[in-house]
Amino acid sequence: MSRAFNFSAGPATLPEPVLRQAQAEMLEWRDARASLVELSHRGAEFIEVAQQAEADLRRLLSIPADYAVLFLQGGATAQQALIPLNFAEPGQAADYVLSGHWGKTAVKQARPYVDVRIAASSEAGGFRDIPPREAWTLTPGAAYVHITANETIHGVEFRGAPEVGEVPLVADFSSSIASEPIDVSRYGVIYAGAQKNLGPVGITVVIVRRDLLERAGQPRADIFDYRSHARSESMLNTPPTWNWYVLGLTVKWMLDEGGVEEFARRNARKAAMLYEVIDGSGGFYRNEVAPHARSRMNVPFFLREEALDKLFLAESKAAGLLALKGHRALGGMRASIYNAMPEEGVRALAEFMRDFQRRHG
Amino acid sequence: MSRAFNFSAGPATLPEPVLRQAQAEMLEWRDARASLVELSHRGAEFIEVAQQAEADLRRLLSIPADYAVLFLQGGATAQQALIPLNFAEPGQAADYVLSGHWGKTAVKQARPYVDVRIAASSEAGGFRDIPPREAWTLTPGAAYVHITANETIHGVEFRGAPEVGEVPLVADFSSSIASEPIDVSRYGVIYAGAQKNLGPVGITVVIVRRDLLERAGQPRADIFDYRSHARSESMLNTPPTWNWYVLGLTVKWMLDEGGVEEFARRNARKAAMLYEVIDGSGGFYRNEVAPHARSRMNVPFFLREEALDKLFLAESKAAGLLALKGHRALGGMRASIYNAMPEEGVRALAEFMRDFQRRHG
Repeated sequence: MSRAFNFSAGPATLPEPVLRQAQAEMLEWRDARASLVELSHRGAEFIEVAQQAEADLRRLLSIPADYAVLFLQGGATAQQALIPLNFAEPGQAADYVLSGHWGKTAVKQARPYVDVRIAASSEAGGFRDIPPREAWTLTPGAAYVHITANETIHGVEFRGAPEVGEVPLVADFSSSIASEPIDVSRYGVIYAGAQKNLGPVGITVVIVRRDLLERAGQPRADIFDYRSHARSESMLNTPPTWNWYVLGLTVKWMLDEGGVEEFARRNARKAAMLYEVIDGSGGFYRNEVAPHARSRMNVPFFLREEALDKLFLAESKAAGLLALKGHRALGGMRASIYNAMPEEGVRALAEFMRDFQRRHG
Repeated sequence: MSRAFNFSAGPATLPEPVLRQAQAEMLEWRDARASLVELSHRGAEFIEVAQQAEADLRRLLSIPADYAVLFLQGGATAQQALIPLNFAEPGQAADYVLSGHWGKTAVKQARPYVDVRIAASSEAGGFRDIPPREAWTLTPGAAYVHITANETIHGVEFRGAPEVGEVPLVADFSSSIASEPIDVSRYGVIYAGAQKNLGPVGITVVIVRRDLLERAGQPRADIFDYRSHARSESMLNTPPTWNWYVLGLTVKWMLDEGGVEEFARRNARKAAMLYEVIDGSGGFYRNEVAPHARSRMNVPFFLREEALDKLFLAESKAAGLLALKGHRALGGMRASIYNAMPEEGVRALAEFMRDFQRRHG
């Protein structure tokens, strides 16, 4: 067979050169005479890999020196519990802005640890927009304001960092990190599961302004303490070394390709191709997200006739376009078009969609 | 170059056939037209991989049906915090038996959540033995009794499950799981980071008697709730799919090789080879652990002349025997000889040690 275009929302497609390098080094990494997955995390070899990955990520995202970068386990969901544990006092309020499913997950994980305030929500409108900033009700003295920069299921994305004053802005960037330049200094905490835009599944990046690490937070085990992780350079216990290494390869690939400015251009072109097909289909396809809030990473869409869903999925798969089924919470279709998805793949999907409409519209 | 014998304590050597299969499938897994690391965890392909891994692990370890098997992130250390959160009421006592470094780690992580009682400790004797059962002071009404089945740094191992009555026995089996048959029904909870004897780094197995999942435990986020993980078949959030897959390959390899009975025989022979060299060296090498408590997995030893340490490490590395440096907490040397270390590798080390002594003794 041959590799197809994989539109999975995450775990998601990886750059082929990254997979080829991981493949070539699977039995022996450089001159180590062992696979990287077999090397001690305390050894000079892995420490070099880990430090290079951090240096490259700092360069890719222009992360200021006063931010720590942590490489952790547990996915974004675990961070959604650790964030209030680390940054909120017991009983303190924290503001959450909901623009989709994952904002609600963040709230669910935080509730045992913080007085959750829903500062704004677009749920009543089916999460088809970002709640307008002027309608947010922020709590004075809140520990932080939490947003989901890009909602993977609902396909709703913030444009830039909202202004929230002195309160730290905490953002789940799992599905849009490194897709365009961001001003890290506007955020207190940025966290992201790697399996969408940073590389492989099984590792999570937390970028945190160092002064926040001095917050007392709440009683917690050392393994739940971001400060301890920062002090030990994310080696408080055995980190997921192989995943860290493949993340490093992916970040290096992004730098080699031209960095986030180049991916911002590519991603804008890719998203435009799909939204044009949808908007130009006369209602055969539809995406209901407010145009100014449409995600460049995840394009959910529905067929006018739901009865055609199965045929669409079967024919697209046969055409080498994989994993287009929408999330079960929403139904319909979804094309996830992260950095590693080439323009060629999106073009093939756009052509398939036009052709499918011609044949079944 | 060629692959050497890697005595790393973890991440540790993997079976070469496992690495070869992971390598062959790195770009395309079966007919998926994508790498397994790129497939959705909710898709039929990965679910088959995950379920097969669980079924094989249940067969390998003869896990009774009334035990749940969880595949989690965070390493053993995270479980050391989650265990009291899930199984102890706030303020309840829990007994800890200390036979080395990792028992103390378990205590450190548990302290914020449980009234830790040190039921017994061999620390005063330098952790060179298991505290004798008759000297343990167990607390009536304790939530559980915690032991470390094998101490990776100190090289001290329990022989079988100690009798603790009705209180659930919780055991960190990170460095000896699957090294010999165990009677799972003697334990309430068995947990193990995979990176020593079960496969790759980045995934942790928790085997828990289902009735314990009904315990209320303490207020906690859903992502910290073992019951939620059990209900969702360890897919509460995106699991480390690639690591799970390689764990499955490793477990399958162990079954193909003859299962835990066969590995028990091999491991006994391997450990005997090294302890014989040490004990027969007239003090040139020494291991200070009480013979009845010596680990079959991790053999720490010291050279009579510490000044020879560097030379020993340099010469052994040149001879293709890697990662023999002892843990910084103890110094000296350590040979970790998990299931994936072939007898041939241990024989080569034993011969090297004899030869080194001849030349420098």
